[in-house]
Formats: sequence, C-alpha cells, structure tokens
Amino acid sequence: MIAASARRFAIGVDYGTNSVRALVVDVGSGAEVGTHVYDYPSGDAGILLDARDPHLARQNPADYIEGFFVAVREAVTAAAQEPDFAPQWVVGIGVDTTGSTPIPVDAKGVPLALHDEFAADLAAHAWLWKDHTSWAEAAEITDAAAEHPDRYLSKCGGTYSSEWYWAKILHCKRCAPEVFAAAASWVELADFIPAFITGNTDPQTMARGICAAGHKAMFNDAWGGLPSSDFLAALDADLPALRERYAPEALPADRKAGELSAHVAEKVGLPAGIAVAVGAFDAHMGGVGAGIRPGTLVKIIGTSTCDMMVAPMGQELPDIPGLCGIVPSSIIPGMYGLEAGQSAVGDIFNWFTSHLVPAEYFDDGDAHAALTVAAGNLRPGESGLLALDWNNGNRTILVDPMLSGLLVGQTLHTTAPEVYRALIEATAFGALTIINRFEEYGVAVDEVVSCGGIAEKNPFVMQVYADVCNRPMKISRSAQTCALGAAIFGSVVGGAHQDVQTAQKKMTGFKDTIYEPGTDATAVYADLYVLYKHLHDAFGGAETAVVSEVVGPQTTMARVMKDLIDIRDRVRKG
Amino acid sequence: MIAASARRFAIGVDYGTNSVRALVVDVGSGAEVGTHVYDYPSGDAGILLDARDPHLARQNPADYIEGFFVAVREAVTAAAQEPDFAPQWVVGIGVDTTGSTPIPVDAKGVPLALHDEFAADLAAHAWLWKDHTSWAEAAEITDAAAEHPDRYLSKCGGTYSSEWYWAKILHCKRCAPEVFAAAASWVELADFIPAFITGNTDPQTMARGICAAGHKAMFNDAWGGLPSSDFLAALDADLPALRERYAPEALPADRKAGELSAHVAEKVGLPAGIAVAVGAFDAHMGGVGAGIRPGTLVKIIGTSTCDMMVAPMGQELPDIPGLCGIVPSSIIPGMYGLEAGQSAVGDIFNWFTSHLVPAEYFDDGDAHAALTVAAGNLRPGESGLLALDWNNGNRTILVDPMLSGLLVGQTLHTTAPEVYRALIEATAFGALTIINRFEEYGVAVDEVVSCGGIAEKNPFVMQVYADVCNRPMKISRSAQTCALGAAIFGSVVGGAHQDVQTAQKKMTGFKDTIYEPGTDATAVYADLYVLYKHLHDAFGGAETAVVSEVVGPQTTMARVMKDLIDIRDRVRKG
Repeated sequence: MIAASARRFAIGVDYGTNSVRALVVDVGSGAEVGTHVYDYPSGDAGILLDARDPHLARQNPADYIEGFFVAVREAVTAAAQEPDFAPQWVVGIGVDTTGSTPIPVDAKGVPLALHDEFAADLAAHAWLWKDHTSWAEAAEITDAAAEHPDRYLSKCGGTYSSEWYWAKILHCKRCAPEVFAAAASWVELADFIPAFITGNTDPQTMARGICAAGHKAMFNDAWGGLPSSDFLAALDADLPALRERYAPEALPADRKAGELSAHVAEKVGLPAGIAVAVGAFDAHMGGVGAGIRPGTLVKIIGTSTCDMMVAPMGQELPDIPGLCGIVPSSIIPGMYGLEAGQSAVGDIFNWFTSHLVPAEYFDDGDAHAALTVAAGNLRPGESGLLALDWNNGNRTILVDPMLSGLLVGQTLHTTAPEVYRALIEATAFGALTIINRFEEYGVAVDEVVSCGGIAEKNPFVMQVYADVCNRPMKISRSAQTCALGAAIFGSVVGGAHQDVQTAQKKMTGFKDTIYEPGTDATAVYADLYVLYKHLHDAFGGAETAVVSEVVGPQTTMARVMKDLIDIRDRVRKG
Repeated sequence: MIAASARRFAIGVDYGTNSVRALVVDVGSGAEVGTHVYDYPSGDAGILLDARDPHLARQNPADYIEGFFVAVREAVTAAAQEPDFAPQWVVGIGVDTTGSTPIPVDAKGVPLALHDEFAADLAAHAWLWKDHTSWAEAAEITDAAAEHPDRYLSKCGGTYSSEWYWAKILHCKRCAPEVFAAAASWVELADFIPAFITGNTDPQTMARGICAAGHKAMFNDAWGGLPSSDFLAALDADLPALRERYAPEALPADRKAGELSAHVAEKVGLPAGIAVAVGAFDAHMGGVGAGIRPGTLVKIIGTSTCDMMVAPMGQELPDIPGLCGIVPSSIIPGMYGLEAGQSAVGDIFNWFTSHLVPAEYFDDGDAHAALTVAAGNLRPGESGLLALDWNNGNRTILVDPMLSGLLVGQTLHTTAPEVYRALIEATAFGALTIINRFEEYGVAVDEVVSCGGIAEKNPFVMQVYADVCNRPMKISRSAQTCALGAAIFGSVVGGAHQDVQTAQKKMTGFKDTIYEPGTDATAVYADLYVLYKHLHDAFGGAETAVVSEVVGPQTTMARVMKDLIDIRDRVRKG
C-alpha cells in the first residue's frame, strides 16, 4: 500500500538524433528523480543512410515507439527508488523532439514504414531533420514564397531550408511517388508521439503543435494557417490535398494533446489518463527548461547552437531579418518565440582538433583539454589572430550556407592554441552578432543562459563568451534542459502549475557560477569585434547582409591586419 | 712534376648565414671538382645573439677570415683528387656574401672586433643582414629620403630597410657611440673579403662593389654616388665623414679587386697573384650561376625567395614600384639588375609543419614528404581554400612587413594536406604577382629558373609554380648556384672568358626536367588568382598597393567565398 505524498511529478520525454531520454521530475522542486536513455537500434546510431546519397538521413518510426516504452518504463522504475515516488503521482507528460522530422502516415495516422509493403522503402520512414536531399525543392519554395503577396517566409529569415517540412514532402513526391500517394498526411515527430501515446492519431483531428507548424511548415494565423492551396498547387498539384488533412489550428505546448491511453500506460507502468502536452521541438522546450524569459537569451551550445528569445505579444514586433523564425507561443505560450542559431560551434573546435593539432596536445589523450589550458594562458588579442566562424556557413544573421571559414593574422610563430583560441573567440563574436541583431530590433538581451556540454564543462569558453558579449553568462542548473522543459509542459497540462512561467520558477535554476565580463578583456574584444564585423559584412555580402541600424566604429580592409598587429603589440606591452 | 693541362679553374667562395663554402669549378665545362663547407664556430650557428633583444644578430669577422682559409684550402685539396687539377691552373677567385652585412673597421680596414678593446662589444662585430635592431632608424631614413629631391629610394621600392647599411650605422651611433667613433669606415662583408685576401683593405681605396653599394647604401651615379653630405648630415652630423672615406666609384663584379696576396695564398695552398673579383651579394651571383639573362627570372627559393631579373641598359627603364632595387651592373655588368623577393616561402611550409600538423603525417618522419604526397593527390581548386602568403609580411610588391597570413574557405572537413597545398599555391600566387609587376613595367618574363632545396627536391611545388605562373619552370643544374656564380666572376677577372655572358654559356645549365604549365590546372589557377589578387589588393591596402596597369577580371569581397565554392564544385564534378 502506497502512502499519500505531498510530491507530484511530471515526465519529460526528449527525442534526440540518436536516442530518446525520459526524465521524471518533481514539479515542486525540479529535482530529477529518475531517467533512462534508449539508443535507437536501427541503422547507424539510429540513422538510416544511403551510400548513394550522403544527404539522406532517415529514421525508423518503430524506434520511436519502442523508445517511448523502454525509456519511460525504465525512468519510472528508476524513480521508484525514491521513497516519495509512485506512478500515480505523475500528473503529466511532455514530449520534445528533433525537427523538422516529418513522417508519412496512412489515414489512421500509422507510419507507412510500419506497413510491410513499405518497410524497406527509406522514403516511407521518418525524414530526419538533417536529411538534406530536398535542397532543390527548398530553393524552389524560397523563390515561390518570395513572389507571394503573403510573404510566407518573412517570419523565418526569408529562406526555406532543405531540412523543412514542405521541401521534404515535395521531394518525396518526385523521388518516391508511390510513398507520396500512399501518405494520407505527413506528421512531425513532435506531433506523432503525443498523438500515438494518447491514441488520437487521426491526421485530421490530432493535435498539431504551433512550434513545428509555425517554424517549419509556414503555418501562421496571419494568413489562415498553412500557405494557401493556390500557393501549394503552384509547387505541385497534389500538395493542396495535404493541407485539407491538416488540423485548422496549431496549438502551443501548454495545451493538452490528450490523455495517456490504456495500451501505452500498461507498457510503461503508469496509470492511464495522465495528461499529455502538445509536442514541440527540443531546443524550444530546452529554452523553457533553461529558464527563458524576456531579456534572457537561452543558448544551447553543441555542435551548432540554437539561440532562443521570447518577447511579450502585447507590443508590436517587427520582422527581424536573418532570424530562423518568429512564431507566437512556440516557446512560451502567449509570447513570441524567436529562434536564431550558429551553424557550427563545437563542430569547429572538433574539426580543428581532428585535423590540425600536433601530437603533443594529445599526450594526455584529450586535445580539447590541453588546448583549452594553453589557450587560457593567452591574453585577448595577444595572438594577433582573428577568425570567422563560418566553416559550416552562417545561419543567423546571414542565412547563407555558401560561406566558409577564414583566419587572418598568422605569423611564422602562430601556434595551435592560438588558433584554437581564435576559433573560440570567433564563435563568441558570432554569438554577439546574433545578440546585436535582436537588440537592433528592440529585443533587449540582458543576460545569456547557456546549456549543453561545452557550457557545463568549459569555463574558459564561457568566460570568453562573457567578455566578448559583455554580458553575464549563466549556466542552466539541469544537464537535461530539453527533457526538463518537456516535463514543465507536462506539469502545466497536468494541473500542477497554472502556467509555464510559474512552473519555470519552481522547476528551473542556474548553477552558482556566473561568468561576469572582465573590464580589460571586454575592451580588447570590443576593438577586435570592429574587425570581425568588418570581415563579416564584407565577406557575408551586401546582397544578404542587412545593414545594421546601430553602426559602431568602422575600419577598412587595408587596416585589418595592421589593427590586429596594433592590438597585439598593445596587449603584449601590457 | 705536373703536366700541362687544357683545363683551367676558378674558385667561388660563398658566405652564407651559418657557413662559408668554397667551390672549385672547371671554367670550360662548369664541372665542380672540389668543394668544402666551413661552419662558423662563434655564437649560435655562427650568429652572435643578445637575449635582451631578439632583433640583434651579429657575426664574428674572425670566422670569415678563418672560414676563407679552411674552406678554400680544403676545396683545393679535394680538387687535387682530379687528375687534371693543379693549384696553378686556378685563374681567378670570386666572392659572394650575405648582405647588407656591414663591418665597422679601423683606418687600415681591420675590423674593430679584432682589436682587444672591442672583442666583447657586439656593436663592433659584423651586423648580419637579418639584424633588425635598426628599425627606427630605417623609418627615419625612409621619411628623410621621401622628402629629398634626389628621391634616393626611387630605385629600391620607396622604403629603406632595417637590414640595410645606413640604418645600421646610424643605430650604432646611437646605441654604441664608442664603436661608431672608433670606426673609420663601415665595409660590407662582400667588399671586405676581396679586400682582405688581396691585401688592399684601406677603406678609402679598397674596391667597393656596386651590388652592395647600390642596393643597400643608396649609391647611384645619377646623384653622384652615395647620398649627399647634406642629406646624411640631416640624419646625423657625423655621417658625412663616412661618405668621405668611401670610394668615389662602386664597381661591378667583373672588375678585379686585386690579386691574391702571398700571405693568404700560402694559407690556402694556391699561388699568389690569382685575380680576385669585386664582391657581390649571394643572390645576385646566384642569379648568374643559375643562368640569368633578359627574359629569364631567377628565383632562389629558400626560407624566403630572392627574385632577380636583368634588363638591357640601352632602353629606358622606369622605376618599378615595390621592387627591392634596380641597380646598373649589380648582377650582370652592363645590364640593370632588378631584385624582388617574397618574405616567406619555405618558412611558411616549415611553420605549418611545426605547428599545425597531426601526428599521422609524421609516421615516416618527414611531414613535408607525407603532406606533399597527399597534397599532390588533390586537384587545383578542389579544396576550396585560398591563402595569402604573408606570414612574414610582404616584400614585393607591397613592401610592408606589417601584414600577416590569411586562409579562407575552410569547412568542417578541411584537412592538413589541403591547407599545405593552399599555402604552396599562395606562395606561387605571390611569385606570379612579382612576375606581373615586372611585365606591367615592360620587363618580359618568359621563363623562370629556380634554385634552392625546394626547387631541387620538390617536383610537386615546381609543377604548382609552373601551373600558377603559366610559364615553364627550369631548375638550375648546379646545386651551388651562388658559389658557381662567384666562380664565374673569378673566371672573367682571371681572363678565362671575355665576359659574364660568355662564361655563363660555358659554365651554367639547367636540369633536364622542365616543368611545363598544364592546361587544365592553369585555367583553374587563373580563376583562383583573380580571388587572390582581390584579397591581396584589399588587405594590402590602397595606401601602399600600386594599382596595376593591367587590370584583369575582377570580383567582390562578397563573392570570394562563393567563387571558391563554385570553383571547388566545378572541379569536383570534373
């Protein structure tokens, strides 16, 4: 017999690229009392590849389903080690996933890949976010949207991505018409999981989340939901039918998608009827788990970054050029959700370490650690180096994948730690450029909360970010902000908290260490940033760069190398 | 008893930075029949350093003297292994040295450093070419010359270098006035050796070579020899006295400085009275040894390069902006000698290999070899990378040490061999920029003869140079072009040949392998060079860059990364 408890719990389920994590969280304290990670068994670390096309990346929907069963059941089992936990005290479940990861489904919402006749067809599986096979269709949609009076891309940076919903569907029509024909609808993974676990998988009535719809499918109430039938028909005559089988409304994640079905409940060891929130993307729920609020930018730093802000919906918010998306209620319901990002951060450090670092830095095995120590012994500006962080193109603010890295200032004495530091600084300058873009359009950035492995494990990088951005850098208390954010939505739909902000106050927090900008370093970085911005604008291109309304100090290309030497000599003289 | 011989010989003595080499050459065939290298015993590999000042580099004049004795004696001994060689068949001796390497001497021409009271004073030693302590004085001279009606620097690129004669003397006056006061004159090493071995060391009557005087001391018949007393007095009141103790005439190296003294002859095992040529710099005599003639650029490729041309004196030759010097008869008597150079070539490859190359390329010990093989397997343009070769500044055509390296086009997949190749290509683009500058001012460059270790040992680099420069690349037959060039001048003053050109025909040659430009590679490099030149001009600065009269295809900074990607994709698609 189980005693009554003052504690209640929510479960966040976070679908990543290679695995799914379930996290059981105390809704009163944010304490994480049980977790489990399930690695997708199919393909290469969960990804189905095609040797003939390096752009292709698919996933098996069966992995998602089995992953829910195993991860949640084991997390619940782990939580049961806590004296005050019992399954009946779980009030709600939230789900976040990668995206845009659309899945073709039949009229009942069953993924086509689960039908025998499509089991071997990669086009019938989930189209993982990083599948880039649809690049030509993305360009086609960008061009079509640019000419349309409704300016469908005005809220997402002006460029449709090959990673997104309609590009993938259109590409499927062309490369696998039998799959396209069999698909009654395409469902984002973020919508599929809540639909599946509540048993409401009918494509026309299932809950579709505003996060995926708004950021990836051009859904906006301003033009009546999805883009018009005419617009879709111009792309392909068979697309409008899909619009008809989409819900008329896209919902924020503080709305209930339904209740846990008896079938699923039994599989995971929970009572049926638990409230399940509408799904959203991992980064967005991660922002909530990190404590996002007006004035606080949340930066999820991994191989790339996702930078998120929220802004009250009472005030007029202009289109902000270069942002990935501005969608009402996509992060915190009732506020604009603003998404930006850097195309590569950890990826750049990993590239350098993999390809351009001598043996001596591997003496202790971890070159990142050795380079960080050596780079940390340098002073800002001392190396005379400056880099652009564009090895994987530039997402925000230039929205241009056809850019590349740049390093300037090398002498005959330049060392690997100096380059490593310059690359770190370049990503910080990239972060500052995003911050400035928000502020140029009236969205103040007072502080930054970072999460992800680099933020948690590399104080040197965080100090550089604080110095470059001239703002305090906080670190999210939870190491699982996405799953925690999902649990927060679970807690709200489960009635434990009246709204997301109230839940955040109880369930989120920062680590004690706050990185404060240092006066001397900040001054040097301000000078270096003038040079970074000059290179950024010149190499980034007049046809894509939007002229900043806040024009600071200027330089000329012919001064760049000399200014770097001047700064270097000034720093070296102390 | 020694039989009569149809063969005659000349000896070239080549004073390098760390050692001196003597070479015995058959004047009829150019066959090198005996050689010996003497490493300077003093200091660090022959260089006297001062831990307090990294710019300081001096040498002990005693090393030069002992070096002559040992190197020539041993070379003659080695030559004596040849059946047809005997010391009395040596007709002449030529000497080349580093420079500007001035030595303060007393009234009899004895180096001050050889006096006990100055033996410990570094300022009384030879001021090696790469001593940069006099950078402030060089700037002062540049400014003064710019304002002077005689435009003393118009023939040497407009900028006086800290490596040069007057800057060093002026700096000595200020930092070691007791040495300055004791010095009756300052004698270039290239003049000191012929003076010493002929016994004619009186500073006022010894043979001063036009090569050192013209390229480093602003000596020009157009303004009556050295700069005027007024000009020198404006720099320092005590400088004009040095002008008075300088020969009124500066001589080409096909003139006799004198004859081998009995004292020296005995030390080296040669008969007294052998003709000794006026001295000149190593690169200039190296040009002669490599077969320089109108239309043929000689490129001595080492850590940096020296690029030399000659032009007939019958035609009017304009000042060529950015060249290190244009001096009548400084290379081949009767022709203009034109000197240019790249600040770093081998130094850049060595820097990269020392600082930014992973362990795997050292598996066989020689990273240069491993990187060359891997880089050679790439196609031009395939990496998408482009570099500027300015890690040590730019000598020609920008004459600006305050420039630095640049690399653009990096992705997350960029490898060390790709960067290595981009650096090689950058130095080739730098070479082409010099060639174009010559041609823009009417000096045609039909072919290039390279010498030095890289030219001899790295066919891949030479093929890149041929493809980038779109000209045949020949390699000098001799591995010792400087000493061979000195021997050629010895052969002329010894009467074996009527002039330098005749001697060159007999004594120089090319290796059989000639690197011809390839059509496909040349086309890709032409496209890449448009981008290189755009970066070159923009980062090199409008205030120093001289607008080319031959304006080719143009691009914009915003196109640079995109053009690199376009070229890359085009090449990859074949």
